[in-house]
Amino acid sequence: MLDKDRLFPAESGVARRVAQALYETVKGLPIVSPHGHTDPRWFADNKSFPDPAALFIQPDHYVFRMLYSQGVSLESLGVPQQGTNSGEAVRVDPREVWRIFARHYYLFRGTPTRLWLDHSFETLFGLTERLSEANADTFYDVIAAKLKTPEFLPRALYERFGIEVLATTDAAVDSLEHHRAIRDSGWKGRVLPTFRPDAVIDAEYAGFRENLEALGTLTGEDVSGWNGYLRALRSRRQFFIANGATATDHGHLTAMTADLSPVDAAKLYGRIFSGHLEAGDVELFQAQMLTEMAGMSVEDGLVMQLHPGSIRNHNLKVYEKFGRDKGADIPSPTEYVRSLRPLLTKYGNDPRLTLIVFTLDETSYSRELAPLAGHYPALRLGPPWWFHDSPEGMMRFREQATETAGFYNTVGFNDDTRAFLSIPARHDVARRVDCAFLGRLVAEGRLDEDEAFEVAKELTVGLVKRAYKL
Amino acid sequence: MLDKDRLFPAESGVARRVAQALYETVKGLPIVSPHGHTDPRWFADNKSFPDPAALFIQPDHYVFRMLYSQGVSLESLGVPQQGTNSGEAVRVDPREVWRIFARHYYLFRGTPTRLWLDHSFETLFGLTERLSEANADTFYDVIAAKLKTPEFLPRALYERFGIEVLATTDAAVDSLEHHRAIRDSGWKGRVLPTFRPDAVIDAEYAGFRENLEALGTLTGEDVSGWNGYLRALRSRRQFFIANGATATDHGHLTAMTADLSPVDAAKLYGRIFSGHLEAGDVELFQAQMLTEMAGMSVEDGLVMQLHPGSIRNHNLKVYEKFGRDKGADIPSPTEYVRSLRPLLTKYGNDPRLTLIVFTLDETSYSRELAPLAGHYPALRLGPPWWFHDSPEGMMRFREQATETAGFYNTVGFNDDTRAFLSIPARHDVARRVDCAFLGRLVAEGRLDEDEAFEVAKELTVGLVKRAYKL
Amino acid sequence: MLDKDRLFPAESGVARRVAQALYETVKGLPIVSPHGHTDPRWFADNKSFPDPAALFIQPDHYVFRMLYSQGVSLESLGVPQQGTNSGEAVRVDPREVWRIFARHYYLFRGTPTRLWLDHSFETLFGLTERLSEANADTFYDVIAAKLKTPEFLPRALYERFGIEVLATTDAAVDSLEHHRAIRDSGWKGRVLPTFRPDAVIDAEYAGFRENLEALGTLTGEDVSGWNGYLRALRSRRQFFIANGATATDHGHLTAMTADLSPVDAAKLYGRIFSGHLEAGDVELFQAQMLTEMAGMSVEDGLVMQLHPGSIRNHNLKVYEKFGRDKGADIPSPTEYVRSLRPLLTKYGNDPRLTLIVFTLDETSYSRELAPLAGHYPALRLGPPWWFHDSPEGMMRFREQATETAGFYNTVGFNDDTRAFLSIPARHDVARRVDCAFLGRLVAEGRLDEDEAFEVAKELTVGLVKRAYKL
Repeated sequence: MLDKDRLFPAESGVARRVAQALYETVKGLPIVSPHGHTDPRWFADNKSFPDPAALFIQPDHYVFRMLYSQGVSLESLGVPQQGTNSGEAVRVDPREVWRIFARHYYLFRGTPTRLWLDHSFETLFGLTERLSEANADTFYDVIAAKLKTPEFLPRALYERFGIEVLATTDAAVDSLEHHRAIRDSGWKGRVLPTFRPDAVIDAEYAGFRENLEALGTLTGEDVSGWNGYLRALRSRRQFFIANGATATDHGHLTAMTADLSPVDAAKLYGRIFSGHLEAGDVELFQAQMLTEMAGMSVEDGLVMQLHPGSIRNHNLKVYEKFGRDKGADIPSPTEYVRSLRPLLTKYGNDPRLTLIVFTLDETSYSRELAPLAGHYPALRLGPPWWFHDSPEGMMRFREQATETAGFYNTVGFNDDTRAFLSIPARHDVARRVDCAFLGRLVAEGRLDEDEAFEVAKELTVGLVKRAYKL
Repeated sequence: MLDKDRLFPAESGVARRVAQALYETVKGLPIVSPHGHTDPRWFADNKSFPDPAALFIQPDHYVFRMLYSQGVSLESLGVPQQGTNSGEAVRVDPREVWRIFARHYYLFRGTPTRLWLDHSFETLFGLTERLSEANADTFYDVIAAKLKTPEFLPRALYERFGIEVLATTDAAVDSLEHHRAIRDSGWKGRVLPTFRPDAVIDAEYAGFRENLEALGTLTGEDVSGWNGYLRALRSRRQFFIANGATATDHGHLTAMTADLSPVDAAKLYGRIFSGHLEAGDVELFQAQMLTEMAGMSVEDGLVMQLHPGSIRNHNLKVYEKFGRDKGADIPSPTEYVRSLRPLLTKYGNDPRLTLIVFTLDETSYSRELAPLAGHYPALRLGPPWWFHDSPEGMMRFREQATETAGFYNTVGFNDDTRAFLSIPARHDVARRVDCAFLGRLVAEGRLDEDEAFEVAKELTVGLVKRAYKL
Repeated sequence: MLDKDRLFPAESGVARRVAQALYETVKGLPIVSPHGHTDPRWFADNKSFPDPAALFIQPDHYVFRMLYSQGVSLESLGVPQQGTNSGEAVRVDPREVWRIFARHYYLFRGTPTRLWLDHSFETLFGLTERLSEANADTFYDVIAAKLKTPEFLPRALYERFGIEVLATTDAAVDSLEHHRAIRDSGWKGRVLPTFRPDAVIDAEYAGFRENLEALGTLTGEDVSGWNGYLRALRSRRQFFIANGATATDHGHLTAMTADLSPVDAAKLYGRIFSGHLEAGDVELFQAQMLTEMAGMSVEDGLVMQLHPGSIRNHNLKVYEKFGRDKGADIPSPTEYVRSLRPLLTKYGNDPRLTLIVFTLDETSYSRELAPLAGHYPALRLGPPWWFHDSPEGMMRFREQATETAGFYNTVGFNDDTRAFLSIPARHDVARRVDCAFLGRLVAEGRLDEDEAFEVAKELTVGLVKRAYKL
């Protein structure tokens, strides 16, 4: 089913030949996954994944959003509803869910989801036919049976995938118990936490007050005041560092940063804490906190990631019934140049800071992000994110960012996924697209062939390891 | 003159071979034209088109805007002026107009207009040389002579073009007399009206008051109040449905929608009707009416089309002398995610609504429209519109929309034209570009060849017929 | 080192063959450089360039911004600091600077800077190896030695490059002494000034007051009043015209234009002159002055260039130490349609005006600029600017602008550089990319081959000479 030369330049010429040769040297390199959303409990408990639907469909918003857009209800797919256990479907036969999925598999034509799924089916389960209504049950049975074998336990898959390190994303008040359990178990897999403090910074986050309280309790700091709040965050960062974290992650609505005086920042925090908000306080506080976090990164060395521009939970009805992360997060235009200026003015020239910026607004690649990253020592460009984590999306990123930022202000690939089985497929797509791009540069006389081999390795492992200090 | 393999991948390889094979299966399929601006009177009266200039130049803003941009006056081209009959030129010899056009034909190099014109000249008139100053008179004579023959009457052309259905665009207060005359004539061509209520919704539309009065008179409703106004619109929609309409069309400056309470909506309409406007009322009323129209579509089944983002009549001097639609409508940045939210919150999950959205702002394909259409069941993406109805524009649309929205949240092709003779050429360009895109997907291992054949047919007839209920 | 077929379509087919054939006919055409930042003193004095670092590194913000982004300090590169002579490095051994540059040469992989540098090294200095740490000293010695020879004096290089005309950019209060010295010398090279009045129009420009005073002194006008100020500008424009200028250049933060009444304009100028500013005055005055300048261009025939959208000196620390033009100018989103409307309403239909608009915001190519230029007789599109003056950037410009604006509303290529030795390389890249684009159009049946030859010549010399009246 899989074309061994997929995603390379279609015609047989220099570009294709070079892409093939480059790929041969990087396809087997270890997977370095510095940003993602797998569940650390999988690796702590090392239990079997329940069934094909629970693995491929119910947790993957790429999959069910497309089905939903064509009239398939989320209920019929057993997508977990609010108030139910997040890993658990609601009274739906997983085999029936799988049949619905198979019947609609044609909807994924031309999408990266299709590439990832086919890759998993063939390489992991030996399923070389295209999924369809006719073979749905066969697929289901084969997958379900394999999931029960030791070779398909999470740790075995981690090893089989050739993962060298895998970062998860964890709330600032998380106990990191699963990460500790993994380490205490003696298993040699590296599953590292990432410090994600959104829920104690965004005053509109569900449970914000409770999160603040937990932050105070966990750290023994008095978070009713600005200085105690900052000390509590520093303390949690140290806790994450002690548990292996090398990075933080920040998912804001905009890229706005601020640099208030300590007095004004303290007053602002007072309003945030008390809930007596003035107009703009919520966004301004997030903006100020990005700069504070950059300052803490200068101190403690955690690499900082900023993912702005997603309007979360756009579909109110879906949100009310099914909660967050249900395929209804929609990108919006995002400005970086004025927004990042306060932070960059304060820390952008400091070699101790690495700030990795992502975007859902491709117009910013060539207009804003590549020019900024091609100047500020602290700034790096994250790989194409979310909807752009796709062959066309990745190629546009290279075409639009490289001429101004070069390769060395980028940081390799992130899979950013909770779909564990798609990780090898996603990295494989990224490697192929990068080799295709490099092959074209060589064929067009824009890069020497020996350099292309060096760059291909850098894009696969070198840049990501250095950027994330892995 | 026409390359039989035009618009396919240039190099001879898999992508080109597949594109050719796909095209063989779709080139002869009927033309389904669900959105356009041909004049229903042509088919009602079935009279000869007057002369080459009146057919190719004077009504086609793509043609005369380019000539005007290079210093050719609209007067010299006989473009109809305000106060004259819309189909009639002002004291200009059409042969002289044609000569000016021929002399400047080189200006269209690299534009889709050139492709459409060459296609018409060769396939309809057997003119296989390139138009130039030298052969201008020959072209004129050949075209003028053919236009007088029965084979070039509107109905004969409709049949020769293989049109299965052709939608026009008609004001809410239109009598639809020509559509009725067509049906009453017994001719089997399907020329359907489309309900376009802009002129009774946009308070700044020229003649808005008179249009409202006509709306009241035609329907016997008291349009001085909100409920009577809504009843009048429902009544007109039923009239259009009775005359074959399957869709509405809305051409707003922005995509803004609103969902006011009935009381606030009634008050707003009161201000609109009385002309005692507050700041923002005109846009807010349009926004509210989009949501009202979506609600009516849920009731009566008319497919809803939204075409926002064109700043009309940008050139005041041209507008004052020549009126609307004179090539001076200019796109502007257009936001969809926040703008459509009120409407989508109310009706976006309702399977009875089909809302087809178009854009002149290509940045929204991957950032906003594909993510929205890849989630909301009611939403579909219209084909590349207006300035983007071109080989590069269509290819960018597929490249930027498909990975997130897939093929099945799109709705085939619209020609959107008042240039009747260009319809086969436009559909041919769309079919070729789609086949080229699919050919590349196959060659790059992203789609199986058998699937590509299925998708090619869907993009040509399947999707459009289902989306528009044709 | 240089691939003779670089930048042509990679695969051997029609597109590549046509691109090669087209290039053969344009590669030797004279260089017409209507917009740039070379120093007229070079050609007046005709002295040797000092050393390789002073030629290739210290004045070229493309070079040192990339090095800086990867942690190389500007001090270590001898980039001139505030208060030092602009051409002079600060106590740094140029050979050491060159070694740093060579050690980091890999950073430029995939960038146009790399193409330009390799081209200069090979064609001017016969250096056919790739620059590296190992051969840094050899490169330095070869270049340093050649720079001392008569063949490398500025005038000799001008002639060797095949430059037909070279425009510089000069402040409104410049004496143009070097331009006069060039002419008085009897040398036949055409080095023309361009009138750049930003420093007497932008009230936030460093030294604005002093510049206004100089303007008054030089012209004998009383610039404390609106009419005297306008007379002074008219006077300076005449002075520039007398010294060979054919164009003006305007580098504003936005494309905003205004058309105030004479009374309001005079009042606004009063506030600008007195420094008693109201909110928005600075931008409004710049906006008004663009329209005034367009009016003066209608009178005196100077071609008007507008370069908006760069946020200058984004990095405050770099600005304070090193001053302007240090690689920290960052593009931002730029709107044209509403912004240019006042100016275009007044002068956009006037055949005596040529307004050439540039952008750093590529999203405006297809959305705003091509539609505007494809309609207004006075408007032309400048070539891809600054960060987009690159193979991918140029190709995107052609792909996104041509279908709506055609070729004939564009104005050929600008090198826009202060890196004199890069001029042939930059024009060569532009010619190759244009030929590659045309080759693809021919191969795809979108343009006849004989037309492509005509267009290639127009894009190289015809359009630029006509647009700039050279």
